[in-house]
Amino acid sequence: MLVTEDTKISIERLREDLKQLAEIGRGEDGGLYRMAFTAADMEGKAWLEQKMKDAGLETCRDGACNVIGKLAGKVADAPSLVIGSHIDTVPCAGILDGTLGVLSGLECLRALKEAGRVPEMPVELIAFSDEEGRFGGMFGSQAFAGQVTPDTVHNAVDPGGLKLADTMQELGLDPWDALQARRDPASIAAYLELHIEQGPVLSQMQEQVGVVEAITGLFKWTVKFHGEPNHAGTTPMPMRRDAFMGVADFAHELPRILDENGSETSRATIGRVELAPGSPNTVPGEARFSLDVRDTDETVMNELAAAIRKALAAVARRRRLSFSYDAESWIHPVDCDAALVDIVEDAARSAGMRYRRMESGAAHDAQIMATVCPVAMIFVPSKDGKSHSPAEWTAWDDIEAGAQVMLGAIERYAFAGA
Amino acid sequence: MLVTEDTKISIERLREDLKQLAEIGRGEDGGLYRMAFTAADMEGKAWLEQKMKDAGLETCRDGACNVIGKLAGKVADAPSLVIGSHIDTVPCAGILDGTLGVLSGLECLRALKEAGRVPEMPVELIAFSDEEGRFGGMFGSQAFAGQVTPDTVHNAVDPGGLKLADTMQELGLDPWDALQARRDPASIAAYLELHIEQGPVLSQMQEQVGVVEAITGLFKWTVKFHGEPNHAGTTPMPMRRDAFMGVADFAHELPRILDENGSETSRATIGRVELAPGSPNTVPGEARFSLDVRDTDETVMNELAAAIRKALAAVARRRRLSFSYDAESWIHPVDCDAALVDIVEDAARSAGMRYRRMESGAAHDAQIMATVCPVAMIFVPSKDGKSHSPAEWTAWDDIEAGAQVMLGAIERYAFAGA
Repeated sequence: MLVTEDTKISIERLREDLKQLAEIGRGEDGGLYRMAFTAADMEGKAWLEQKMKDAGLETCRDGACNVIGKLAGKVADAPSLVIGSHIDTVPCAGILDGTLGVLSGLECLRALKEAGRVPEMPVELIAFSDEEGRFGGMFGSQAFAGQVTPDTVHNAVDPGGLKLADTMQELGLDPWDALQARRDPASIAAYLELHIEQGPVLSQMQEQVGVVEAITGLFKWTVKFHGEPNHAGTTPMPMRRDAFMGVADFAHELPRILDENGSETSRATIGRVELAPGSPNTVPGEARFSLDVRDTDETVMNELAAAIRKALAAVARRRRLSFSYDAESWIHPVDCDAALVDIVEDAARSAGMRYRRMESGAAHDAQIMATVCPVAMIFVPSKDGKSHSPAEWTAWDDIEAGAQVMLGAIERYAFAGA
Repeated sequence: MLVTEDTKISIERLREDLKQLAEIGRGEDGGLYRMAFTAADMEGKAWLEQKMKDAGLETCRDGACNVIGKLAGKVADAPSLVIGSHIDTVPCAGILDGTLGVLSGLECLRALKEAGRVPEMPVELIAFSDEEGRFGGMFGSQAFAGQVTPDTVHNAVDPGGLKLADTMQELGLDPWDALQARRDPASIAAYLELHIEQGPVLSQMQEQVGVVEAITGLFKWTVKFHGEPNHAGTTPMPMRRDAFMGVADFAHELPRILDENGSETSRATIGRVELAPGSPNTVPGEARFSLDVRDTDETVMNELAAAIRKALAAVARRRRLSFSYDAESWIHPVDCDAALVDIVEDAARSAGMRYRRMESGAAHDAQIMATVCPVAMIFVPSKDGKSHSPAEWTAWDDIEAGAQVMLGAIERYAFAGA
């Protein structure tokens, strides 16, 4: 591997870019409101495109309104190294999630351009549309990877009931163009994404950079226990069919289920519980709860699902309840490309960064891109593990470290020849 | 005990009364909507008062709008045996709760009057206002027992925010008159109430009548666990401070707490659970739940409360949570009067009824009346334990049995001399 590492990113410029983009869509509560396909989102895209142009990149937007800036390579028609993330936000967001990946990528390409360095292959920086899933999926990367169908274009709605198609049309966009956003996989060499961790691991371990080896898969169920609503005073304990006690018993089994069937990367979360009738003096006749289970290994996911079904059945039998569940989603885990992960690790190690190999517990555009090309990710620490909140933050030193590792990875991959 | 048992109640007349009153306040869904101090409630009271007059009783309404019908006794100024219950309902109620106690009492007095039988002491039949607590308490019996203060009159509101005082005024009633509804305890010899069980015990045990020995006390807490809201994917299990897992652990301890500290009559119910932020992919940072705990023995209630505090503290420590609770109410248990219970039991036994001694797990006007006089209660079975629902029902045979036991108890108590 031929490496030249004389190029440095400028944390001052990156900081200034973050500051400028943080002004677009800012709410009165200090949070960012740059939800996909809102006026603020479009203003952010325009700002970004201008920044790309200023950096000397060739820019374009594809049919899904993904914004792309290209640094040409020596071999013009070689497949590209694609880097990026997204600049759309959840409501009341912080300023880093997604945006940091796009703007640190911009700084990398700007630094390379400024240094007059020309990669072997083209490097394309992309800001994918609607990563946060306002319209239900990762619209931009899915379109790019050829996963969007006319059904998506026609039926996708946001939580307020607005249609994606109508929303795009009002912005002067043709929603059907999204079906043309698919890129020939032969034109993509690899995808690299920098992102905040959104978890507490790097911060608690005092690392600067996470070298992501895998992105966890997940399944989401809505589970219901049915019992019988009864008077809390007049119904003796042994005569009850208390749906909530079923949930409690099951939740209590979760640590055992993870211990017996899970791995280090397993997670299980009950985030929402609804009881009916929900009155303090009535034994709950029905309990509905969400179950979010993750692991980086699909075999483990299957074993967890089987163990959970057994536990639900056993609890229901013991408590004289019935149960049912809706399997709402099953997202496959993704292994990052081993060679690409080694490149990222080498970039971190030779720059003297404190880093660790880890998995991503959250979903990212990289997960979609993995269906068409090798992918890897770089994490930077999230203060207190917080994200999707104005409290989201990463120390400037760590941001600098992450961006520099991204630049090192680009140098190792795109300058070494395909 | 001198007993003459030649008088019989008429189930046909009682059935006809129940049918007529069930037409007042009936909703389109088949449920009754005769909530206290609504037009339907007032129409029900007027209907009842006319029925009392038709039966030859002297009627009046006191300042709390309790409707009273009096069967005079041989000793005119002797303290009265008071019998009764209430005819107000919860929204979407069945036709028996409360009403059965009033109308079976009416049938008892009508049968006695018809038979020309004059008791030693007066027997007063009363329909207490707002037993169901639209305005927060058992307004009618509390006023009768002298527990209503100007504060109640001025500040009581219903769940819709309507003030008791305004509501009464709109009906042409003076709310301040409620302060004059207090009856001198010296004028009350005892209180007897017939009510549906509202639980499954008599029905499952195939008994016709319950002889109530005690009314359970209860305490209601709202408990909060505070943890930390975190991303369900990125937060490793050992780094979580999951408020819901605190609730699950605590709920799982409840059976042990009841086994170790409770009695046969102990009940503990978690009827409502609210998680924040309540999103499927966020570890709950806060969990709030209702806790309703009952027993017939106040010492046991205190021991349960102490054990619950210990369990909450232990769970919080183990899960790295903090907890707090609001003790919203503490209602003392009430022992029924032993002599009065014996009288009810004797009436049931000598009429050849299948009966059992039991406790009441629900609150009743009798609980308030116990602060001023000896009380006892007669239960009839609730089909499937259901109440506060149009599905509430009791077989006619059992209604007849209960009313006949009430008549037997009146004969034993009011005809035997004070």
